[in-house]
Amino acid sequence: MEQLFVIKIGGNVIDDEKNLAAFLQNFASINAKKILVHGGGKIATKIGEQLGIQSNYINGRRITDEATIDLVTMVYGGLVNKKIVAKLQSLQCDAIGLTGADANIMPAVKRPIKDIDYGFVGDVIKEKIAIKNLEVLLANNFTLVIAPLTHDGNGQMLNTNADTVASSLAVALSNRYDVRLIYCFEKNGVLENVEDDDSVIKLITKEKYQQLLTDKKLFDGILPKIDNAFAAIDNGVKEVLIGHANDLLQNVTPHTKGTLIK
Amino acid sequence: MEQLFVIKIGGNVIDDEKNLAAFLQNFASINAKKILVHGGGKIATKIGEQLGIQSNYINGRRITDEATIDLVTMVYGGLVNKKIVAKLQSLQCDAIGLTGADANIMPAVKRPIKDIDYGFVGDVIKEKIAIKNLEVLLANNFTLVIAPLTHDGNGQMLNTNADTVASSLAVALSNRYDVRLIYCFEKNGVLENVEDDDSVIKLITKEKYQQLLTDKKLFDGILPKIDNAFAAIDNGVKEVLIGHANDLLQNVTPHTKGTLIK
Repeated sequence: MEQLFVIKIGGNVIDDEKNLAAFLQNFASINAKKILVHGGGKIATKIGEQLGIQSNYINGRRITDEATIDLVTMVYGGLVNKKIVAKLQSLQCDAIGLTGADANIMPAVKRPIKDIDYGFVGDVIKEKIAIKNLEVLLANNFTLVIAPLTHDGNGQMLNTNADTVASSLAVALSNRYDVRLIYCFEKNGVLENVEDDDSVIKLITKEKYQQLLTDKKLFDGILPKIDNAFAAIDNGVKEVLIGHANDLLQNVTPHTKGTLIK
Repeated sequence: MEQLFVIKIGGNVIDDEKNLAAFLQNFASINAKKILVHGGGKIATKIGEQLGIQSNYINGRRITDEATIDLVTMVYGGLVNKKIVAKLQSLQCDAIGLTGADANIMPAVKRPIKDIDYGFVGDVIKEKIAIKNLEVLLANNFTLVIAPLTHDGNGQMLNTNADTVASSLAVALSNRYDVRLIYCFEKNGVLENVEDDDSVIKLITKEKYQQLLTDKKLFDGILPKIDNAFAAIDNGVKEVLIGHANDLLQNVTPHTKGTLIK
């Protein structure tokens, strides 16, 4: 099967012009089909503050009210997405920026209210991902740049976690492509010792993960990423790599840096 | 040749939820290939005010400074574009939202500084419009929803008049499609008497236009639209229709309302 890279970047790349430029140069040079999923970075919070939109949290989870979904639709779907697309075009990479509503690629359901009403947050409906449309775009050599937004099929945009968007796409396309999912974040990989940037764990298997959990070696923030990674592997993704943006892309294959999850 | 509608809507449709919903219902029901070009409406000005971004005008022309290009990229390319796309998807119309940077569809050059520096305003480079990419997207039955933004090929987004975006696309695609260009605005058509909504001129030929100019019957605001229309006709567009949004789309063919320019 043909190779497809699904690469997710977050605030540490997006918020810094130099980091972003360096990352996009490496990304553009990957000579294979590729999808870039981006988060929003700090700019959404900054613009939200200027617009007087309060960030509301319940139990540490952000609530997406009506003003906030408009804010993230503007900032993620407009400002950040188009800046990336324009920069990729300048690097001769034929990028096309999408949200989950465009070409209906990622239908979702507004998260049901149980204890907490998260507001306009979308849970991806995996079986409704428009694989055929994604394939048409990839087959025509477009590089897809995807904002972490979905839609409910009734005209409402929804806010969806960028890690989840990336893993959902990776899984959905794993029947047609040999998919490598790469999570770029601010550390060099999954660390044995969170204080020591050089303590990257090279390989995490399920057995190793259980051991790390038992030994309580992992910091909390990394657990959802690893869970997401194993869910992707269990559903057909060939391998998942977690680590620092530039390290990973300079060494897309073979992997000499970061944490490989298999 | 296959028929293609290129339809432009402005603030009077976009700013009013009901008008927009009614328009999109009609638009979605057009059973032919179609491109929708939208302006930004008042919401960009409103959000700009909230963000403390001054609207600067010289000789009545808006200047697009750095803050303003970010603003319109957010609002036109994000908020307005994705709202329209999500609503069209809810009407089973497989829409994909684009700016001129996406799929490189509309490269432009930053307007050269002569007497006035307009800032980040893009003049479309007609011969660089990515006709092949537009054809691929249309051939795969995507409905294109296009924000009035272009890019300079060096990573910079640019602001471009929506009427010009529509006519440039219409002309560029007129070799491959039988293109009808429709300008929807707040009046019923080109009026003989600007005070009288019923005084719609049914047909404007070049001779008629000269006569109207000589008689000074036309109000100033309509002249650029008519000039744009004739430029499109001279370059291969089959016909141009100017009038009220819902009138026009309810009667896409044959035209019983609005002003036909031929």
